[in-house]
Amino acid sequence: LKNFVLIVGGGIGTRMGEGIPKQFILLDNKPILFHTIDKFSALADIALVLPPDHFSYWDSLCENYNFQKKVTLIAGGNSRFDSVYQGLCSFAEDGIVAIHDAVRPLVSAKLISELFKQAYKVGNAVPCIPIRDSLRKLNGLNNTAVNRSEYTIIQTPQCFAISEIKKAYEIVQGKDYTDDASIFESAGGKIHLIEGEACNIKITYKEDLFIAKALIDSEKL
Amino acid sequence: LKNFVLIVGGGIGTRMGEGIPKQFILLDNKPILFHTIDKFSALADIALVLPPDHFSYWDSLCENYNFQKKVTLIAGGNSRFDSVYQGLCSFAEDGIVAIHDAVRPLVSAKLISELFKQAYKVGNAVPCIPIRDSLRKLNGLNNTAVNRSEYTIIQTPQCFAISEIKKAYEIVQGKDYTDDASIFESAGGKIHLIEGEACNIKITYKEDLFIAKALIDSEKL
Repeated sequence: LKNFVLIVGGGIGTRMGEGIPKQFILLDNKPILFHTIDKFSALADIALVLPPDHFSYWDSLCENYNFQKKVTLIAGGNSRFDSVYQGLCSFAEDGIVAIHDAVRPLVSAKLISELFKQAYKVGNAVPCIPIRDSLRKLNGLNNTAVNRSEYTIIQTPQCFAISEIKKAYEIVQGKDYTDDASIFESAGGKIHLIEGEACNIKITYKEDLFIAKALIDSEKL
Repeated sequence: LKNFVLIVGGGIGTRMGEGIPKQFILLDNKPILFHTIDKFSALADIALVLPPDHFSYWDSLCENYNFQKKVTLIAGGNSRFDSVYQGLCSFAEDGIVAIHDAVRPLVSAKLISELFKQAYKVGNAVPCIPIRDSLRKLNGLNNTAVNRSEYTIIQTPQCFAISEIKKAYEIVQGKDYTDDASIFESAGGKIHLIEGEACNIKITYKEDLFIAKALIDSEKL
């Protein structure tokens, strides 16, 4: 079985207060997306899902930053669900795929390798980290304390057998799933968690850019 | 009613990999705890709970860093529960108290002021931020997706009427509560949430120090 990577860069990034989609924003002098793809440099088959409107911008970035890594561009849909499904359909053979958010540029090669290793053993692998703050459940206008140790924060990459995650996408319909683990589970699958990385943050808000830059600088020390 | 502040610095910081308790670790050239206290500079009555073993170290830090802000040192107990209760007992009159983690140095003056304002209106105020990653519930060896929009991450400062939160501490017993909102609620209180701040991080692990430094640098820009 081969290893594949599917990077999902569908976001339009309106929460960042910048004019460009957040995966293209510069981080330490290069677009976030280039950092992300570079983390998968050990892997040959990388599909990148982008809105077709961004294809020419992507091409110009590759040229301007002399970005050499070969990726297969896939036209995304109107939702994350559609975009991932398009990406899954683009793979010509079965294998294990790591599905990863374009805006998580700080994932380590070590975590990626461990995820593939576990997915080969037990069928899938999803990284998680403990919740360090207190947690409450919202019930309409009320809210109640919950035991944070009974919950876990989920990250990407999430690894699955391509045939199985694709089947899951075909069984469930495009409801408001926030990740592939939920979709796989809704189709009857059981999720296998492994320990993720606190540094593997999702760049969502403007201050996350400063945080990501600080983490990159600390790696250089 | 007067405003009071109770800063809880009981942690021994074993997760940081440093020889000293984490509230004393240097951040941007001064101890984390001084940053935290400085954020409450608009308030006169600040009680600081520390393990009595750390009192002399605190004194030497104040001298070495020429730290002038007057705080009342309170000897903490063996748990967060005991430490906060000792702090609450130290206030000579009733009022609204903001109970805050010593290792959240990035809280803004604006959030503090909003918390006091709401606590005066409705009795308490607790800051929360949305969960940006996916969330799963752990059930022994299994785990299941939960809807992250039904949960919220809780921060400090948490504001209460001193008499009421003190009564709550006397009603519930020292179980494994992770914050004061849970204790207040266990004693029958209803928690009022307000919007917190993504930057108001709790310095728990080593990489959090780099993140905090980056956020401080970005404020200077």
